[in-house]
Amino acid sequence: MDRLARMFDTHPEPASDAGEQALKAVRETAECSLVCTTCADACLAEAADMADCIRLCLDAADMTAVVAQMLARPGHQDRETLQRALEACSRACQACAEECERHADRMEHCGICAESCRACADACDRMTGALVA
Amino acid sequence: MDRLARMFDTHPEPASDAGEQALKAVRETAECSLVCTTCADACLAEAADMADCIRLCLDAADMTAVVAQMLARPGHQDRETLQRALEACSRACQACAEECERHADRMEHCGICAESCRACADACDRMTGALVA
Amino acid sequence: MDRLARMFDTHPEPASDAGEQALKAVRETAECSLVCTTCADACLAEAADMADCIRLCLDAADMTAVVAQMLARPGHQDRETLQRALEACSRACQACAEECERHADRMEHCGICAESCRACADACDRMTGALVA
Amino acid sequence: MDRLARMFDTHPEPASDAGEQALKAVRETAECSLVCTTCADACLAEAADMADCIRLCLDAADMTAVVAQMLARPGHQDRETLQRALEACSRACQACAEECERHADRMEHCGICAESCRACADACDRMTGALVA
Repeated sequence: MDRLARMFDTHPEPASDAGEQALKAVRETAECSLVCTTCADACLAEAADMADCIRLCLDAADMTAVVAQMLARPGHQDRETLQRALEACSRACQACAEECERHADRMEHCGICAESCRACADACDRMTGALVA
Repeated sequence: MDRLARMFDTHPEPASDAGEQALKAVRETAECSLVCTTCADACLAEAADMADCIRLCLDAADMTAVVAQMLARPGHQDRETLQRALEACSRACQACAEECERHADRMEHCGICAESCRACADACDRMTGALVA
Repeated sequence: MDRLARMFDTHPEPASDAGEQALKAVRETAECSLVCTTCADACLAEAADMADCIRLCLDAADMTAVVAQMLARPGHQDRETLQRALEACSRACQACAEECERHADRMEHCGICAESCRACADACDRMTGALVA
Repeated sequence: MDRLARMFDTHPEPASDAGEQALKAVRETAECSLVCTTCADACLAEAADMADCIRLCLDAADMTAVVAQMLARPGHQDRETLQRALEACSRACQACAEECERHADRMEHCGICAESCRACADACDRMTGALVA
């Protein structure tokens, strides 16, 4: 078991029993945040005009980072804030994935970023499902 | 005109004409993020058990920071992401204000934080209104 | 007195007596973070290749944001961490200012950003001075 | 190869040849940021007064997050900013580890957090070494 899983396991007072789902979501959002940051940076190095793609990568990088942080506080309790943050994050990832997919054939980094964004949006949606259940 | 207003004014390609509203919202969210961070830190120095208040302050500090950053990119274009982020931010501020108001009579910092959170939620709601209009 | 000043004023246990200096530094870093974010976004809308400028703006935006957050915790106590963070922030702002100054005659936003970065580096250096004193 | 490694691999213009070291450092800082965030939250749920530990966890969480972001931009070029940020991050992690180690026998989460902070400080120091070489 890695360190983050052990942290979740030893938290004295988690607010919900969606810990397993939260752990998956925190991993996907945290990885997606870094991937989007790297994609924006890689896009800056491309000859083409990637301004729109870069902006969507930055939005997704920011929203995923904040959701990762919120989910990394298992004692966190305002379900409605978390739910809305997950929805904003899921949308940011979808918007970024759509744009990145347009460049995926010429720019491999955009293809990987789209893949990460899709997985992240999916993890957020599942986490939302676990909250509502 | 301060520096941020001048930056918005000289941006070559703002995505919307809600610049004035965005400027107000970016200021409220940025201030609120710092105020919530300070309130969490002040709560840590109180003798009482302020764990719930601190968590809500941290959530609000994080959500306001990310919305400030997104709004500080006037070329930003995915309206739906922004709208959802504003909703999550507004909710985080309301939840924090409600909790802080309970302690406001004994802890002045909580009173000021609640005031900042209410103003911020209001600015986010108005910004949402400007996006939808 | 604005909200943040009132927060600092009502904090029950500030770790240092450099509160006044910290308040100035938190304001400069917080404003500079937004200004750099907007400058990066404005640079994306320029026809010229602004990749280097954008990267330096993003570095400065990130470092100033983290220093603003740390300084917004007046009970914060590891002086050495804060000192090093202030040095990294000051350097990031200087690097961004140098690059932005090259474009200031053609791009007004870069001129304002350089001005903000210089003021921020200065506030960080003064804060470092206050810590060492 | 995971997504982040593939992103680094497909970046068209990395600024340094310390990519392998950077990848290790970005992983340690990103994990450490989440671990410190969870530890602060877990400490909030403890009966003991953990204020100092929580503040050091928050400082470490913030500094590691910003270094992860900077390192996730392989085209990033101001070596001196990065070096100073790595030093601040390494110091923040050491300070957090020292404090967490004091509680490790009674609070397992603090023991895991200290372990993560030590590994992260080490990765930052190695990255600094790779930059200077």
